[in-house]
Amino acid sequence: MAKSIFYHAGCPVCISAEHDIISLIGEDNVEVVHIGEDRHRIDEAEKAGVQSVPALVTTNGNVLHINFGASLADVKG
Amino acid sequence: MAKSIFYHAGCPVCISAEHDIISLIGEDNVEVVHIGEDRHRIDEAEKAGVQSVPALVTTNGNVLHINFGASLADVKG
Repeated sequence: MAKSIFYHAGCPVCISAEHDIISLIGEDNVEVVHIGEDRHRIDEAEKAGVQSVPALVTTNGNVLHINFGASLADVKG
Repeated sequence: MAKSIFYHAGCPVCISAEHDIISLIGEDNVEVVHIGEDRHRIDEAEKAGVQSVPALVTTNGNVLHINFGASLADVKG
């Protein structure tokens, strides 16, 4: 089964949201991507419609922006 | 077991996020509260830290603001 993808950038808001999301949907159901470290995946996140992190892209392609840690522009630097 | 509570106000962004959240965590694990209709629960949402809807309050009390439909001030009108 396809997994949701949780994009974050290591910020405190991101880490807190990551814990909540894993607790809610289970770590087997979500791939966690740190786009501050895996910078080659920033482009993929952007194409999926991610505008800020933390964000969860669901298996049907919807983007849930969860709270606000940093804009994608800030992550790109 | 305690349930997470999803607060919304019937806006399109809210409905879309509601579908995603129910699909992710299962409808047995979340109580959906329409604070535009159940207006006596606005106060409860505010005390939980909800600033805008849609928002999910987890069982440990964390607030996840998901996308942005309306501020709580707008819902209070």
